[in-house]
Amino acid sequence: MTDQPPGQDANSVAARIQASFDRQGLMRLLGASITHVEPGRVRITLPRRPEVSQQGGYVHAGATGAIADTAGGYAALTLMPQTSEVLTVEYKLNLLAPASGDHLEATGTVLRAGRTLTVCQLEVFAVEGDERRFVAAGQQTLISIPAPTE
Amino acid sequence: MTDQPPGQDANSVAARIQASFDRQGLMRLLGASITHVEPGRVRITLPRRPEVSQQGGYVHAGATGAIADTAGGYAALTLMPQTSEVLTVEYKLNLLAPASGDHLEATGTVLRAGRTLTVCQLEVFAVEGDERRFVAAGQQTLISIPAPTE
Amino acid sequence: MTDQPPGQDANSVAARIQASFDRQGLMRLLGASITHVEPGRVRITLPRRPEVSQQGGYVHAGATGAIADTAGGYAALTLMPQTSEVLTVEYKLNLLAPASGDHLEATGTVLRAGRTLTVCQLEVFAVEGDERRFVAAGQQTLISIPAPTE
Amino acid sequence: MTDQPPGQDANSVAARIQASFDRQGLMRLLGASITHVEPGRVRITLPRRPEVSQQGGYVHAGATGAIADTAGGYAALTLMPQTSEVLTVEYKLNLLAPASGDHLEATGTVLRAGRTLTVCQLEVFAVEGDERRFVAAGQQTLISIPAPTE
Repeated sequence: MTDQPPGQDANSVAARIQASFDRQGLMRLLGASITHVEPGRVRITLPRRPEVSQQGGYVHAGATGAIADTAGGYAALTLMPQTSEVLTVEYKLNLLAPASGDHLEATGTVLRAGRTLTVCQLEVFAVEGDERRFVAAGQQTLISIPAPTE
Repeated sequence: MTDQPPGQDANSVAARIQASFDRQGLMRLLGASITHVEPGRVRITLPRRPEVSQQGGYVHAGATGAIADTAGGYAALTLMPQTSEVLTVEYKLNLLAPASGDHLEATGTVLRAGRTLTVCQLEVFAVEGDERRFVAAGQQTLISIPAPTE
Repeated sequence: MTDQPPGQDANSVAARIQASFDRQGLMRLLGASITHVEPGRVRITLPRRPEVSQQGGYVHAGATGAIADTAGGYAALTLMPQTSEVLTVEYKLNLLAPASGDHLEATGTVLRAGRTLTVCQLEVFAVEGDERRFVAAGQQTLISIPAPTE
Repeated sequence: MTDQPPGQDANSVAARIQASFDRQGLMRLLGASITHVEPGRVRITLPRRPEVSQQGGYVHAGATGAIADTAGGYAALTLMPQTSEVLTVEYKLNLLAPASGDHLEATGTVLRAGRTLTVCQLEVFAVEGDERRFVAAGQQTLISIPAPTE
């Protein structure tokens, strides 16, 4: 899981992922950003604010799921050739604790990278100062498709 | 699944759910609204617009998941006494087709209502004029907790 | 979901599925049998007996999952050409009630049949005389692969 | 995750779990055994043989799921008082690779232990001599109930 796909260096992979992320209206709407990219692993950070809350003031499970799904999707993309894109087949998320704290960090990690299907582990932590609380754990299946030519 | 909880009429249930929904910052941010409430079933509608998209212009799987999760949560709440609230334990969603169309309709339907746990089926359709396309299917587990006294 | 794949009649589909089922050592060990085949839907029946129980005497969630997974797999296969085989990518099962009764009936129904991936709904009922109790609900993703030539 | 429940030593926990396991007809039928117990983690081993196979000779996904579900259930039980029992609410399993090898090792690890609900991570490896292959990854939710008094 630590090898670069042939013909890509780490910078170009991160740049490609950032460019794709910037086209995701939802991530901008939520206020999320990519804070870490390495082969097989991507982290997305979401500040907690009223606009992403559920009725009790915690981050909405749907927003938690959205950044977890996105982190997993880009983690899968780090291991694919430039001619491929990735779509979520399915994801499953357990909410372990209320998503409080200052911001959330969602990390997607590739468990298995196949030619057609990739499986990722999803982990979300709520961070407040030095404290990190494990708030959601999930699993995700993705499919590789040919990237649209532009 | 079709009985009202004792001491609640259909109007008060719908009003209670709308009041809770109005406190969900995320649903307002996404532009979602409740379009149907009956005992054991709730529908949420989300117009497609660039702000809720993924990189290809379809509705982001995270936004699809957010409205599906919310529809299931309120479907569970329709069958609970006023002294209870509901939290998502976990949800799982299969993305069946690109979420195109004019708007999405996410319906949560209670499969099993227990004293502690409720299980819902989640279905999301993309609607364009007369055409409805099945774009996501899911399953969700929820837990009943005592409502905070205000 | 109701069309036969080209070049196959209903009898040959059922015969092909029965032949594959007969090669599944686990299904024989459990005592399961195929009791219904139609395009996009397969049912498997499992008598309850001590050999398939958990510690409390109900059917073990693992046995419930095994017949549900198998029913979904063959439901997917009914819609594929003879040159394809099917593998489970993932499945998720909610246990709704104790699996008591005389026998279990697990039905897999295709929700979406794609060229590469198929998604099935899984439903398991415990049957005792005229009474049918909904004991498990699930969702499953399968992948089509070329059948080994013999 | 590393503390013993009050009033239980490691031996009594392992003995209690073994006694419960011995009442599971399915585990005996499959030929599975408990090979490791520690607080928050249990491993179950299943020899590969024709009786637990699918049509291609690999271990059936249903048997893989059965031992994974059981490992998670007992992992949860290690952290509960003697007056509690545990039931599977739901589980989800991704099959990552064909379950070949000499035997399977399924490990359940508690991710979050709550008063009512416990969430476990499930991992299954196929072992052949010195080689261990990651063949299935899952996640499971369990509920604690009062143990029946005998």
